[in-house]
Amino acid sequence: MSAKTIEDLSKCAVHTITTKPWAIETAIDQYAKAGFGGITVWRDAMKGRDIDLVRQHIKDAGLKTAALVRGGFFCYGNPEDRMKAFADNRLAIREAETLGAPMVVLVCGARPGQSLEESRKQIREGIETVLPHAEASGVTLAIEPLHPMYADDRSAINTLRSANELAEYFNSDYVGIAVDVYHLWWDPDLEKEIKRCGKKGNLSAFHVCDWRTPTEDLLLDRGLMGEGCIDIPTIRGWVEAAGFDGFNEVEIFSKRRWESDQSEWLNDIKAAYLKHV
Amino acid sequence: MSAKTIEDLSKCAVHTITTKPWAIETAIDQYAKAGFGGITVWRDAMKGRDIDLVRQHIKDAGLKTAALVRGGFFCYGNPEDRMKAFADNRLAIREAETLGAPMVVLVCGARPGQSLEESRKQIREGIETVLPHAEASGVTLAIEPLHPMYADDRSAINTLRSANELAEYFNSDYVGIAVDVYHLWWDPDLEKEIKRCGKKGNLSAFHVCDWRTPTEDLLLDRGLMGEGCIDIPTIRGWVEAAGFDGFNEVEIFSKRRWESDQSEWLNDIKAAYLKHV
Repeated sequence: MSAKTIEDLSKCAVHTITTKPWAIETAIDQYAKAGFGGITVWRDAMKGRDIDLVRQHIKDAGLKTAALVRGGFFCYGNPEDRMKAFADNRLAIREAETLGAPMVVLVCGARPGQSLEESRKQIREGIETVLPHAEASGVTLAIEPLHPMYADDRSAINTLRSANELAEYFNSDYVGIAVDVYHLWWDPDLEKEIKRCGKKGNLSAFHVCDWRTPTEDLLLDRGLMGEGCIDIPTIRGWVEAAGFDGFNEVEIFSKRRWESDQSEWLNDIKAAYLKHV
Repeated sequence: MSAKTIEDLSKCAVHTITTKPWAIETAIDQYAKAGFGGITVWRDAMKGRDIDLVRQHIKDAGLKTAALVRGGFFCYGNPEDRMKAFADNRLAIREAETLGAPMVVLVCGARPGQSLEESRKQIREGIETVLPHAEASGVTLAIEPLHPMYADDRSAINTLRSANELAEYFNSDYVGIAVDVYHLWWDPDLEKEIKRCGKKGNLSAFHVCDWRTPTEDLLLDRGLMGEGCIDIPTIRGWVEAAGFDGFNEVEIFSKRRWESDQSEWLNDIKAAYLKHV
């Protein structure tokens, strides 16, 4: 299944973290000026801002908000942290509603040294606890399976199959999945699980970037599309064949790029998106 | 299934790469002196040596050779490299036979930018090509599935399920699998796939070390057992329940540790093995 031809940036949303040095106001203006259709807002970028004003600014700029990032981190070692996690996710849902973001992306959580079984149990319980709040707010909780190299400290949900099983357990219109090529490209079951994800109505988001070789930092060395080995058009074809029609979101953590001129960086993203997504 | 109690080092083999700064002669003497039962020889460590003499030295020291590391790297971009890969694997099999090592561990290979499908096809073809040589030499080819973070440049076989499928395709007494906790600990299917691996007679080797958080280098920052998050005794219990009765091999790539005093490092390994494996 080949992907649709991409002719412009209207279906592309940029994550504010991708241009981390920019204040959110600059990001909004620059994304809009460059012609991108959407923005995905990281909560850190809204720190100290009135969310209603951010929403208005995004609207005035002609952008759509693809998602709010991020909730989750449902793993804890004591009852206090458990309550904190629930409260923070409720807050994220409220922020998404205020912002007009259709979903909160969940980095589900893990706790160094804690068994994966225990972490997975806590994640399920966490989603279960905040789901009524999400449903009442009309905000989808999008489970993002993370690469297995993050299994100890970021997320114990490490394959699309695991995410599918979790989403299907809830079988709610307000639980979905964010498919990120960076985390999932290596999986021999990827095509099959994307199909399943779409069929069950759980395919909520699609994130792109690339895998660099060598990868010099586990967290902050993601590549720009085309810089690495991921066959993004093929995966996008699978996602579209599974019925996905939302934004292609560019989410890149890159220390190198954050140290460079952000306007040039946004130009590079634009060119790479049109050529390699 | 809980693992058998470990009371001494008789079932422990150390990989020469674990004490990389030592010449193989020093490694043999020091491992034997410390009471380890086995050694796993990396081919680099034998460079310039007469393999018969190394074999004799290991025997005289009272050690057993667990394996020769490593063959594989079956992915290529042109016919010349293809023939080179075959030739090198035949050579590794001959070296294992000469050394008296029961198996050659295979890092199957990957080629940056080449599709995983193509790499997996080349890997299967590579094993197929050298297998008659392995069978004639009485040397097992042990497929080692590598962590997904190595899928672009080291191995396109990234889960135990993929390795099981590959080994079962050959269904030979001379194709097996090396289970390394570092690569596989995160997999929700691990227990099930270890069981399957044992049942099919493919469980050839068991490697231990630990996953450190944060991991500062994708290749050279493996942890000593107990330093990280991997529940090694549980996994060893699964491996033993699946019928495995061979060496527990300590394979640790660690820049930090290689820069330290290797005798103290070997002492640390000894203590960690008795406590955390």
